[in-house]
Formats: sequence, structure tokens, C-alpha cells
Amino acid sequence: MLDAAAALLLEVPPGDLTVGQIAARAGVNETTIYRKWGTKDALLADVLLTLSAERLVAPDTGSLRGDLVAMIEAVAEFLRTPAGFALAHLGATADDETSKGLRDAFWADRFERAQAIFDRAAARGEVADPAVAALAYEALIGTMHFRILARRRPLDPDIASRLVDLVLDGVLTAST
Amino acid sequence: MLDAAAALLLEVPPGDLTVGQIAARAGVNETTIYRKWGTKDALLADVLLTLSAERLVAPDTGSLRGDLVAMIEAVAEFLRTPAGFALAHLGATADDETSKGLRDAFWADRFERAQAIFDRAAARGEVADPAVAALAYEALIGTMHFRILARRRPLDPDIASRLVDLVLDGVLTAST
Repeated sequence: MLDAAAALLLEVPPGDLTVGQIAARAGVNETTIYRKWGTKDALLADVLLTLSAERLVAPDTGSLRGDLVAMIEAVAEFLRTPAGFALAHLGATADDETSKGLRDAFWADRFERAQAIFDRAAARGEVADPAVAALAYEALIGTMHFRILARRRPLDPDIASRLVDLVLDGVLTAST
Repeated sequence: MLDAAAALLLEVPPGDLTVGQIAARAGVNETTIYRKWGTKDALLADVLLTLSAERLVAPDTGSLRGDLVAMIEAVAEFLRTPAGFALAHLGATADDETSKGLRDAFWADRFERAQAIFDRAAARGEVADPAVAALAYEALIGTMHFRILARRRPLDPDIASRLVDLVLDGVLTAST
């Protein structure tokens, strides 16, 4: 049922998604879904965190640059889908308590994964202070959200590597 | 009238602002405003670009770091006001043609100012390629928008210098 909901979420904006559609795709009865999750929102929360864990991967490539490019490419790919845009839009605008709870749980999960990447990098001596993880991750993700929401412009094919280069190396010439 | 509208925009969200309020604050008749701008939206566009020019300053401090910290501090200060949050929220969500036009004009103006800062930095040899301006500016602004919209968290007092350090220097240790 999670798989069915996740697949549908990549096709249908969350607001338009119904428990009936998820049940039909999963080949189960609606009551089965309500028995397990109680509400559509609880199911969506579970789906979001599963999506985050399975699709927005953070593989251990052995370098900070490799880890971040892999992670940010996965996020960029997701944000290019209608569901990704819809979730970013919803996450920036929804003010009800359920949405706030979903949003906080989702971002807590994402920042924890980013922190693990920076902790490994600090252990390798690539970064001096792993506490930079939070701001660096906000810059990587925030730039893409800003691009698609505030500017309504597409994410370039090479956005992940360009952003990671920016955040890792900075823009100053070496001699400065 | 522009001053009156700008002052009100810092107190009242743009959606709630009326031409009557602006006229009262400016001490003129509503018809005077309609004669000059035609619509409330045209007036708001003018106000936004004036705000951008006057409040979101980009002084020539002699260094890229100084220029950017001054500019980003002004933006952060604005985003901390109810009007700043409301405009960021509106800019990320409004889909009507008028809003799109306002948004495009506003961001074109902002990116032009950021480009001027990076062109000066390139002339001083601080950056190798001034074309990095667009992505760097998106990262600086996008991080703050993401923080207040998607995460609903406040901007730290030192957000401008932390963000500028991140974008100028990167996070890698010097020896890497």
C-alpha cells in the first residue's frame, strides 16, 4: 500500500490523492488502509518518510562531494516531477497542524541524513566542523526550492554538481 | 504616495492592502492614485521595485564580502517583517498573470543588482567568472526563503555573514 501511494504521489498532487485511488492501485479495500493508518494524512506522512528514505538516497561514496552530488541529484530529480513540485509548494504554504507535523518530521529526517554525510566528511578531515551541515544543506535544498517556487524556472540538468561545487569550494579565486 | 504604500506594505500584507488605505496615509484622494497607476497591482509593482531599490541596498564597500553582507543583511531584515514574509509567501505561490509579472520584474531587478556586485568583484580579481553571480545570489536568497517558508524558522541574527562565508569560502578545509 505504501508503494502504491508513493507511485501515485509521483503522478497526482497530494491534495487530489484519495484513499480510494490508493486502495485501487494497491488492490486492497479502503477499510484496510483506514484500519492500518487511521487517516489519509497519517498514510501520507508514512509515504513521505518512506520516499525520503528510499528515493532521496544518501549513499556512502567515500567523499563529501560524491555523497552530496548523489543526494542532491536525487532531490532535483524528484523536484522535477509534478509531485515534487506540489510537495515543495505545499510544504512552503500549508499552515494547518497536520501539514506542520508532516513538514517537521520530513525535514528532521532529511537533515539527519545530511548530518550523517557531514559527520563522515569531518571524520575524513574534509570539513573542520560538521556543524556546518545544517546551513550547507539548507543552501543546497533552498536554492532549488527557490528556483522552482519563487522563480518558476526549471532546474538545470547539472544543478546538483554546480550547487555542490558552490557550497564546497565557494566562489573566491584561490589567491584571494 | 509611493512612500505611503511602501510604509503600509511593511505593516499590512499586500493582499489586505487597499487603495483607500494608501490614499488615506498619503493624504490624497483615491482617484488621484487610480489616475496615476490605473490599478492597485500597478501601484504595488512600482512600490516593490522602489522598495528593492531603496531598502535592499547594494552599497559599494570595496570587497565582495562587504557588498554581499550589506545586501543580504538588508534582505534578511526585510524578510523578518510581516510584509517581507507575506511577499516571499505570495511570490512562491501566486499563479495569476499579474503576480507573475510582478515577480519577474522584481527578480530581474534583484539579479541585476547582484550581477553588478559580482562584476566589480571580477574586476578586482576576487572571482574568476562573474557568471557565478546568478547561482550564488539564488543560494543566498533561496536559503533564507527556504528557512522562513518551508521550515517556518526564524533567520538567525548572523545569517547574512554565515551565508556569505558559506558561498564565498565553501565548507572544505583548506588542505583538501
